[in-house]
Amino acid sequence: MHLFALEGIAEVIPGDDVAEILIESLTTHHDPLEEGDVIVLAQKIVSKAEGRYAFIDEVEASEHAVELGAECDKDPRLVQLILDESEDVLRVRPGVIIVQHKRGYVHANAGIDRSNLPETERERVLLLPVDSDASAEQLRQRLSSHFGVNLGVIINDSAGRAWRVGTQGFAIGTAGFNPLIDMVGKSDRNGRAMEVTEVAVADELAAAASYLMGQANEGKPAVVIRGAKPTLGDYPSSVLIRDKKMDMFR
Amino acid sequence: MHLFALEGIAEVIPGDDVAEILIESLTTHHDPLEEGDVIVLAQKIVSKAEGRYAFIDEVEASEHAVELGAECDKDPRLVQLILDESEDVLRVRPGVIIVQHKRGYVHANAGIDRSNLPETERERVLLLPVDSDASAEQLRQRLSSHFGVNLGVIINDSAGRAWRVGTQGFAIGTAGFNPLIDMVGKSDRNGRAMEVTEVAVADELAAAASYLMGQANEGKPAVVIRGAKPTLGDYPSSVLIRDKKMDMFR
Repeated sequence: MHLFALEGIAEVIPGDDVAEILIESLTTHHDPLEEGDVIVLAQKIVSKAEGRYAFIDEVEASEHAVELGAECDKDPRLVQLILDESEDVLRVRPGVIIVQHKRGYVHANAGIDRSNLPETERERVLLLPVDSDASAEQLRQRLSSHFGVNLGVIINDSAGRAWRVGTQGFAIGTAGFNPLIDMVGKSDRNGRAMEVTEVAVADELAAAASYLMGQANEGKPAVVIRGAKPTLGDYPSSVLIRDKKMDMFR
Repeated sequence: MHLFALEGIAEVIPGDDVAEILIESLTTHHDPLEEGDVIVLAQKIVSKAEGRYAFIDEVEASEHAVELGAECDKDPRLVQLILDESEDVLRVRPGVIIVQHKRGYVHANAGIDRSNLPETERERVLLLPVDSDASAEQLRQRLSSHFGVNLGVIINDSAGRAWRVGTQGFAIGTAGFNPLIDMVGKSDRNGRAMEVTEVAVADELAAAASYLMGQANEGKPAVVIRGAKPTLGDYPSSVLIRDKKMDMFR
């Protein structure tokens, strides 16, 4: 399995054609995509291309946002944006609000990011894509058609974990492959049925790519994973979201 | 970054010399290890070599284990083993006990595994290594000395996550490199200080290797990661464990 980061990707601005940017980089600096390649894109470039910016001075904070803002020591207008992006608030602590994003993932501050934004006079933040699976699928179709091969696409982001220090990449959107491999019915090397039944392969690949994307100041928002041989096909990433009823830690 | 699984590793038994097994595989089937390579080992082969088996019929269940066993529908003797390996019980549900292992990681059933064990007449289970950092360090010294290069070593295991479906590889022990990269003081590509401060690089690499180890019936318990360029040096993996006082989800 080989991973390489795409070269020559400049700052993305709203309206940019991400597929075209990737094709340009691949054509100029790398080999063409191959059958079964998985291309992993940092959420930020997708969000930027989709213009998912919000200006803080345009937000009106509700009473609830003001209260939460006092509790977590955040600008109530930023809290309002977090609430608008979320369907549930799990924890509020100084400096952080842990929510369930409307797309299902539990994420600090609804994944809203202030770093890596070009300086503007008015303060703005970057929201996650509206529908990362749909964004991944659009990119998959464009790239697949251009290179004439079947591909997987992952949009990844980094998040903290409940019991471990440090962030880790995970998949907020996927297209073209099965993100959750079901091991039911498979036996281990001794013929015994396995206790572990499902492996979050999309998150494992997202984490691998996140490592390579590495430090933000290197600016490597796209990684190709070659040789992973995922199970290609039409699958949603929502299978990776634990149902609220099965959640032991809410 | 390139990852490859080591070929020709047979079933490991107590007393086996894992370093020797890895050297044999590398010498026979692959190139020598290179400066900065990270070698990732599945917990199972380390535990098996260290003889971390427990026989169920030798365990005497305490009253507490009997109670918990009824609650989660598990053999009270297995529950006793789980408790013996743990310092805290977080959740008990049918089929699963979520505990904090003595080494700090939050892990279902204390990482005790029944799959992938060779059949024996008496039922036995496999516990995690006593001290995975120490085990990783011993392996690092042996491999580093044999190949004459500086290396990183990870012992990985798979675990479920609080809010996401499917297991994912993570690092239960590391040696020879910094498992948690601190981004404090680094600025992003726009010169703005980054909000994200620490990246769990050992877990990202453990997840990548876990993907390649893939299905258990393929029997690939060792993966070399080349080109990851980790920060080499003497670091413990305990920095990846969130302090109980900072835990919002216990």
